[in-house]
Amino acid sequence: MKLATLKTAHSDGELIIVSRDLRTAVSAKAIVPSLREAMERWTMIEPRLRLLSDSLNAGQASSSFVFEPGKVESPLPRTFQWCDGSAYLHHAELVRKARNAEMPEQLYHDPMLYQGASDSFIGPRDPILVADESWGIDLEAEVAVVTDDVPMGVSVEQARTHIKLVMLVNDVSLRNLMPSELAKGFGFLVSKPSTAFSPVAVTLDELGAAWDGGKLCLPLVSHVNRELLGRPDAGKDCYFDFPRLISHAATSRELRAGTIIGSGTVSNRDTSVGSACLQEKRMLEKLATGEMKTALLRFGDTVQVEMFDGSGSSIFGAIDQQVRKYVPGA
Amino acid sequence: MKLATLKTAHSDGELIIVSRDLRTAVSAKAIVPSLREAMERWTMIEPRLRLLSDSLNAGQASSSFVFEPGKVESPLPRTFQWCDGSAYLHHAELVRKARNAEMPEQLYHDPMLYQGASDSFIGPRDPILVADESWGIDLEAEVAVVTDDVPMGVSVEQARTHIKLVMLVNDVSLRNLMPSELAKGFGFLVSKPSTAFSPVAVTLDELGAAWDGGKLCLPLVSHVNRELLGRPDAGKDCYFDFPRLISHAATSRELRAGTIIGSGTVSNRDTSVGSACLQEKRMLEKLATGEMKTALLRFGDTVQVEMFDGSGSSIFGAIDQQVRKYVPGA
Repeated sequence: MKLATLKTAHSDGELIIVSRDLRTAVSAKAIVPSLREAMERWTMIEPRLRLLSDSLNAGQASSSFVFEPGKVESPLPRTFQWCDGSAYLHHAELVRKARNAEMPEQLYHDPMLYQGASDSFIGPRDPILVADESWGIDLEAEVAVVTDDVPMGVSVEQARTHIKLVMLVNDVSLRNLMPSELAKGFGFLVSKPSTAFSPVAVTLDELGAAWDGGKLCLPLVSHVNRELLGRPDAGKDCYFDFPRLISHAATSRELRAGTIIGSGTVSNRDTSVGSACLQEKRMLEKLATGEMKTALLRFGDTVQVEMFDGSGSSIFGAIDQQVRKYVPGA
Repeated sequence: MKLATLKTAHSDGELIIVSRDLRTAVSAKAIVPSLREAMERWTMIEPRLRLLSDSLNAGQASSSFVFEPGKVESPLPRTFQWCDGSAYLHHAELVRKARNAEMPEQLYHDPMLYQGASDSFIGPRDPILVADESWGIDLEAEVAVVTDDVPMGVSVEQARTHIKLVMLVNDVSLRNLMPSELAKGFGFLVSKPSTAFSPVAVTLDELGAAWDGGKLCLPLVSHVNRELLGRPDAGKDCYFDFPRLISHAATSRELRAGTIIGSGTVSNRDTSVGSACLQEKRMLEKLATGEMKTALLRFGDTVQVEMFDGSGSSIFGAIDQQVRKYVPGA
């Protein structure tokens, strides 16, 4: 089942079901108004959504329409919790090297997540609005899951059963605001502007064998200005899979339905596959030649993030965004 | 106007209006189901709530009932964003000293906030459930404000106009999990379990001259096991008032209605007034005698946080919680 959220006047948008080939869609509002509300009653709502999805994929849904990724929000336009991990430690090693920060041994056995802002995500085709280009704008391509209610102290094995949906993320980052922000010791705040997710979120059965029970084993393809940045495999070099990240996040408190857990920037130790953010590419250049040649994103630049199944079909649709200058009141 | 949220089967609870003396209440559900939804349409909803509040305070509301703080959630049982500051730098100086962490000069001119979990707050009379006493359980008494929609890049002056409600906070902290968590560089996650707020949130007019336009100038009174821990004045030694904290949080993104901004633990340089958390008291003991004598919270201990107006009346009602052992599935 593939789910998306139409832009409407309401902050939660309107839930739609999208066909497996991403060509058509049908409104689910007669079942539940929004994906946020669906997550809160998932056990009751899911079977009804599946019936509608089956009829759509069989070409039998009345009132189906052409699916337009430009008209959707992120699947959850807002939610009550977004925690982003850093499971691909090759990424952490490189970006920390780039800002002359230490890589404590602890990070190799103790999962690291930051609490992100979840009040206002941007859509997969919305512009990335930034006031100042000198803040150092970068993409970070990731995989994320959505959970139902997770009890405090959940085990890794039990955490696995709470994963309901998977989607892609562009966790936009402001590299030049990070060193002074992180030096304060409280984590990211202004260095992480609004995050974007893929046009659709999918249930695990859509992923087949690519979902190994804890992570998604397919290349994550990123482009900048339509040029390939990289296609690292999200199934490789992942130190902490999603059940492990969820269990860690729930150490001392419950996580409520609709919680999004991100993998962190996907990164492989085989650097020939390229990167899922510009800062890694820059750091690799510096290590190889002493100089960072690639620039971070500038106003007008575009970013694409997508993932394809074994037969070359897009699973989640493409995140496709342009960086633009934020003008207050405009 | 004083607002509270009755516990119901719904995660957002039911909005009620409480009388100025905290004795009676009336349901506001005919106007708007929840405070979360009221914040999203505040300009339209507020005048209607005020009419009902006026009638309640005049003793003329039909269907009014006795207000019982044991039956309420935090005013917002959940919301889309909770950012907590550290505006009282005397607190930051002491707790950092206690964990042998540096106090960078930057903190005296650049506001510090962390992104907190907002998916599941606990009620003002709910137990503080912790799995392990050795995690180092502490209270942190604070003041917080609730905003409407705040645009990206808002000025300090404009930020002031977005403050709609004020309440108190117990930002429960797990001291012994902090050093290793903060060493990872991503801020707090498991070291901050669920937060509790005061029984009622109030509009600015309820505070009279004690609200100076940016902060609340009254002592914040904390007790542990019914013994006074301290009564530092929230109007003193505050380096960054709420408009400044809001403007900082909105540097690179908008903040959506219902965003809660916390002050951080209130702390005065005049240590004779006592503290609003145990770790400060312990650090002051260590500085004075070389030894921390006061223990952190243990299972069975109670915590009370309250604030009184010039005539000795409780403004927000009391946060009054007991620490208890979390037993999974219980």
